[in-house]
Amino acid sequence: MTNKYYMPTRVILGDDCIVKNSELFTTLGKKALIVTGAQSAKRNGSEKDVKTALEAVGIPYLVYDKVMSNPTIACVYEGATLAKENGVDFIIAIGGGSPMDAGKAIALLAAQAIEEGNLFSGNYEKTVLPMAFVPTTAGTGSEVTQYSILTNDKAQTKTSIVTDLLFPTVTFLDAKYTERLGVVNTINTAIDALSHAVEGMLSVRASNVSDALAVASIRMIMSCVPDMLQALRALQAGTEVVLTLKQREQLLQASLMAGMVIAQTGTTAVHAMGYSLTYFKNIDHGRANGLLLGVYLKLVERVEPDLAGRILAAMNFTEAEQFRELLNQLLGEKEEISSEEIKQFSKMASQTKNIANCVVKPTEDDLRAMLALSFAQ
Amino acid sequence: MTNKYYMPTRVILGDDCIVKNSELFTTLGKKALIVTGAQSAKRNGSEKDVKTALEAVGIPYLVYDKVMSNPTIACVYEGATLAKENGVDFIIAIGGGSPMDAGKAIALLAAQAIEEGNLFSGNYEKTVLPMAFVPTTAGTGSEVTQYSILTNDKAQTKTSIVTDLLFPTVTFLDAKYTERLGVVNTINTAIDALSHAVEGMLSVRASNVSDALAVASIRMIMSCVPDMLQALRALQAGTEVVLTLKQREQLLQASLMAGMVIAQTGTTAVHAMGYSLTYFKNIDHGRANGLLLGVYLKLVERVEPDLAGRILAAMNFTEAEQFRELLNQLLGEKEEISSEEIKQFSKMASQTKNIANCVVKPTEDDLRAMLALSFAQ
Repeated sequence: MTNKYYMPTRVILGDDCIVKNSELFTTLGKKALIVTGAQSAKRNGSEKDVKTALEAVGIPYLVYDKVMSNPTIACVYEGATLAKENGVDFIIAIGGGSPMDAGKAIALLAAQAIEEGNLFSGNYEKTVLPMAFVPTTAGTGSEVTQYSILTNDKAQTKTSIVTDLLFPTVTFLDAKYTERLGVVNTINTAIDALSHAVEGMLSVRASNVSDALAVASIRMIMSCVPDMLQALRALQAGTEVVLTLKQREQLLQASLMAGMVIAQTGTTAVHAMGYSLTYFKNIDHGRANGLLLGVYLKLVERVEPDLAGRILAAMNFTEAEQFRELLNQLLGEKEEISSEEIKQFSKMASQTKNIANCVVKPTEDDLRAMLALSFAQ
Repeated sequence: MTNKYYMPTRVILGDDCIVKNSELFTTLGKKALIVTGAQSAKRNGSEKDVKTALEAVGIPYLVYDKVMSNPTIACVYEGATLAKENGVDFIIAIGGGSPMDAGKAIALLAAQAIEEGNLFSGNYEKTVLPMAFVPTTAGTGSEVTQYSILTNDKAQTKTSIVTDLLFPTVTFLDAKYTERLGVVNTINTAIDALSHAVEGMLSVRASNVSDALAVASIRMIMSCVPDMLQALRALQAGTEVVLTLKQREQLLQASLMAGMVIAQTGTTAVHAMGYSLTYFKNIDHGRANGLLLGVYLKLVERVEPDLAGRILAAMNFTEAEQFRELLNQLLGEKEEISSEEIKQFSKMASQTKNIANCVVKPTEDDLRAMLALSFAQ
């Protein structure tokens, strides 16, 4: 079969890499729109560093800081209108997956007129504003993918804009922006990255290149799990344990590599079901994946033991149940799910292209069983 | 420190991937120059497939098939003149490292006027012809790097043009073009790829991403070594053992990944010395690296045992001497080297930037000792 590798984003990593590479912004354009959420980019210093860099090279900018969690279609049209009205010619997105996904859609919509009904069509002109991205969580991988995932109320799920136009031009990875992330956010985003790496290996589009990156990403995340668990237990006990900057770097780079993986492979049944958990039950995206991932790997283990075995070997596990138990420790007490929800979510997931993307394609019955087991305490 | 990842080439892999993706050529331009050597692209079917694809989409083309091994500066200026005189607007390079490296320089020189004295200066306008590359050996990695390595008679060595402009736009990897490669060529090119992966891990620019690709590349090449050795012994015994297409695919993809590695890391002391062996002693480039690689890894093992250990672990070895012995088996009887040559080559190598790129920087004395040991039978 034909396979592909493509990831044209320039990635710059390291301490103070934004300010040290200010001149890179001059290659992107003459006026920037900074796209971010209301608070975190201000608190963690990333927005300040971007502004310092822009001011150092004399580039004027506006800030659109109204991106909410799981950004809406209305939000990205609002951002694009702001960009167009102000003659902005490049986008800087700062934050977790939400501002980055919104930033991509804004870069697309500011460069070409797309009716809302055609937003997810895949038919676009070959034009987009250049983009510089600054991830401030270690999970989404959006900084190196061609996906913009938006809340789609008409379809009652999250839907992706998918086009190579959406690869950011440049992305800056500085782990210090992730140091203030709380324990639960750190765990949820790490699980999101882990899910990307694992799902990448479970995709029909997996290749030697994507598997190489996935295995390394899994190893790096797993090496941080003991300390994440310790931090979680400390939180529960009312004390505090913080991850080291070195661990933050590991997680950020593991997330980067997992993003490079899904840029090649897409995601699988786990994301297909996870989107419903987020849309209908407001469960954090990474946590939603974590609830489902161990259970799905158990199904894969039954049908394709060698494939599951390669993934488990990267975790130093021999059985998928060991992985599921570890995830359960990281996830803590679970939400409730009703039989009606199970029926609805599995039906919706069964119709997604993520299922066709699986090496082991779950039936609707499989999806139901997986959802039920995912929420078992 | 600041680290980087950048490799914007679109990689297409698989059986008949050129013909199946003919339409991709229409995105590159309206008239092609095919850059290749005199024979192999004709024999292995790659040139025919490229022509079939171009004809399917109605793109006219010329063929420049005068690229020699270790291409000269005169050759690339000749190719560029042909391109300009005929209004060619994109380049297709087919072959091993020589046609691909020449193709890159031709794409650059056809798009902008560069005096020969400035060819290696790094100061270029931001313009180059689009490029489609078809590797027909599994070793160089040139299909995914920003390097064009040319024979530089003034400097009496091989010198690189280095600019991000030289990343090919698209590269097609179809292992069937490598099936007719003889045993010795197969081994030499596999050693070249192995050297890229190992040297990438020994570079000061190594990162988690490049190491992930390097480890996978090393594992894949090493998995083919027993059969390469068997084929070599069969050749020596006057019989024939051929590698399977599956093994050819492994080697081609390992070479791809090793190329992605050196695009990030550059090469080290091994290439620095190897260039002299090729320039002055006409030793094949991959073989030259193979002669030096095991000896250099032994030096690294003494100074940075953990680093050497990670590389050796990917080979399932515990000591660098095991690797050197394996290379010796693959290389067979060695050439002679004089003490005058050792002095000259180590002096030249000590002044290259490849040495500064090493985690373990050999002194000129180290280089002398390594060269002597490399040629010990």
